[in-house]
Amino acid sequence: QKFCGQCATPITRRILEGDNRERDVCEACGAVHYQNPRLVVGTLPIWNDKILLCLRAIEPRANTWTLPAGFMELGETIGQGAERETQEEAGAQITLGKLYTVVDIPHVDQVHVYFLAHAISPDLDPGPETLEARWYGIDEIPWDNLSFRSVSTTLKHYLREREIGHFDTHHYSLFAANRPGD
Amino acid sequence: QKFCGQCATPITRRILEGDNRERDVCEACGAVHYQNPRLVVGTLPIWNDKILLCLRAIEPRANTWTLPAGFMELGETIGQGAERETQEEAGAQITLGKLYTVVDIPHVDQVHVYFLAHAISPDLDPGPETLEARWYGIDEIPWDNLSFRSVSTTLKHYLREREIGHFDTHHYSLFAANRPGD
Ligand SMILES: [Zn+2]
Ligand SMILES: [Zn+2]
Repeated sequence: QKFCGQCATPITRRILEGDNRERDVCEACGAVHYQNPRLVVGTLPIWNDKILLCLRAIEPRANTWTLPAGFMELGETIGQGAERETQEEAGAQITLGKLYTVVDIPHVDQVHVYFLAHAISPDLDPGPETLEARWYGIDEIPWDNLSFRSVSTTLKHYLREREIGHFDTHHYSLFAANRPGD
Repeated sequence: QKFCGQCATPITRRILEGDNRERDVCEACGAVHYQNPRLVVGTLPIWNDKILLCLRAIEPRANTWTLPAGFMELGETIGQGAERETQEEAGAQITLGKLYTVVDIPHVDQVHVYFLAHAISPDLDPGPETLEARWYGIDEIPWDNLSFRSVSTTLKHYLREREIGHFDTHHYSLFAANRPGD
């Protein structure tokens, strides 16, 4: 940012005393404008051995399939955010299950979090950010047209653990790759 | 905030078309200034059955004992942030273990994340945000002078699972309480 959100003075970028990295500082009012990574929260919803995917209507990665997910909002828990995004993007009614994947994506300053979820009914009602919401059979997943690596890796963990019938929480990091939108 | 960080025009607070909550919007340049919850990342470091706690030098909750933790920075993973905070606050050299607790604290718009960790040596070198860093025996933990509920609950999970020798990742939410600093 260029101006102080508190007093509209142009921002200075410098290292504060006792700190070790550059911050956006306002020399007029003393405000320090910190920036922090953002949480993206979503679900892997299941109905009768099928997985819910949403065809993205918006950039990044429009026209690719994703699990329902979006930025966590103020005042909510990660579970509430994940449920809200599932409702907004797919119109799906779910019961939230286990915290399933926690995925660092440091080159875009995001942490993606997915919960397992069970749908209460197969009814879907996609919102404006979704072109189509659809239940995919295990063998029908469009692997070559998924939106993000956090989605494909979460799906792969699920398919592997579904075989053994035991689901753990997974934490891992995805680093920069050439593919846009990763 | 009161002014646009991009163009210094006074901010309008309103619901955008297709959105469902109020945002800080700049009618001059079109910028939308989203606000999102922040991640606090830390560790539960172990050395010879002792647990590292830090006496906070700063508010909130100065003069209470905490696990080393702090706000996640841009460009890092949650694990890197947790290691950095452990180094900065306690001067402890650690090997990071399992992602251990993920704790929603929606009334302060934070998510706290703690990793298990093993110290490489017992040497400590507290930074400016810490009055004292100390290895506490299991029976010495100052339960009535801990900083945050995310700290006390993480310690309780650890002490319980230490008995059975198996550590799971735990996700839970802490809601508003009367105690300041929670
Ligand atoms: Zn200012
Ligand atoms: Zn503006």
